[in-house]
Amino acid sequence: PFCHCLKFLCHMVTVYDQENFQGKRLEFTSACQNIMDCGVDNIRSLKVECGAWAGYEHSSFCGQQFVLERGEYPHWESWSGSNAYHIERMMSFRPICSNHKESKMVVFEKENFMGRQWEINDDYPSLQAMGWSNNEIGSMQVQSGAWVCYQYPGYRGYQYIMECDRHGGEYKHYREWGSHAQSFQVQSLRRIQQ
Amino acid sequence: PFCHCLKFLCHMVTVYDQENFQGKRLEFTSACQNIMDCGVDNIRSLKVECGAWAGYEHSSFCGQQFVLERGEYPHWESWSGSNAYHIERMMSFRPICSNHKESKMVVFEKENFMGRQWEINDDYPSLQAMGWSNNEIGSMQVQSGAWVCYQYPGYRGYQYIMECDRHGGEYKHYREWGSHAQSFQVQSLRRIQQ
Repeated sequence: PFCHCLKFLCHMVTVYDQENFQGKRLEFTSACQNIMDCGVDNIRSLKVECGAWAGYEHSSFCGQQFVLERGEYPHWESWSGSNAYHIERMMSFRPICSNHKESKMVVFEKENFMGRQWEINDDYPSLQAMGWSNNEIGSMQVQSGAWVCYQYPGYRGYQYIMECDRHGGEYKHYREWGSHAQSFQVQSLRRIQQ
Repeated sequence: PFCHCLKFLCHMVTVYDQENFQGKRLEFTSACQNIMDCGVDNIRSLKVECGAWAGYEHSSFCGQQFVLERGEYPHWESWSGSNAYHIERMMSFRPICSNHKESKMVVFEKENFMGRQWEINDDYPSLQAMGWSNNEIGSMQVQSGAWVCYQYPGYRGYQYIMECDRHGGEYKHYREWGSHAQSFQVQSLRRIQQ
């Protein structure tokens, strides 16, 4: 339901209910809406074996978002990045569909696709270094692939996952970026890698 | 002394002794070995106006490392990323010289430039997704530009700044990556952007 390319791309994640890949261990190849339905109270470490995933603080894909690419995440801090609030919870997750090489999006200075615009098809650890005039993005239109935007330069702070397959790729106000978004502040962004 | 291209590239950073760009304000265009020599007990927010910088937990460029690219950093969490130890200190900083477009380095499976090797000239949010076989890098040889390596995928965890202009670009054991390095674990890396 989330990703039309799921049938072509492998996705696999192994989650553990204790830190450092200890405790109860579960494998998934598709979305999990509530880890408690699998008899686990929380995810405390994980290994992405294949594909890219989005993790969420709450069940039903709500709350803080965490982009998860292939590799090992031994504890909450290893996937959360630096965030304004520290709640060691990941209760749901789902695969992300992304074609890293062909990702394209347009960022707009103002909400509702207004103001100055800029077409992007690369990673930007500092938008300002590349000529964007301030520390905010008003709205975004994802034309292909999946992206992660960050509050601070160098891929730090809140993560906002943006996909062409969701919302029709349209994110016209920060209220559509996720329930944890509290401002238009975005200072770096990059393509999500399978 | 740190960077042969300093004369050609602009570097400027404004630091504040309180969070959110409040309190005493100081501007720098070159390295600061100890912020206390400027009558400030700690840096609690900063704006990089131009160029890339390396920030350090302790004076004399020691302790945890923080890569700082153009943009606004209102508090410690905005530059620290997710780290194993939380000490809200930045006491010294210096410019980084980097030619983002021509950065090149070789990563090696084992220490002392042994084992399998791989030449890199792009950003890698997940080394394993791109074919690297494990979650460690044994040693690195920086041939041009400046790089930042991270403990976890997606540019998270400890930051290790690697430059062709320092150590002759040779980092043959994690003990040479910085005094905060405790293992060979590196799961993402990228070029530093001016």
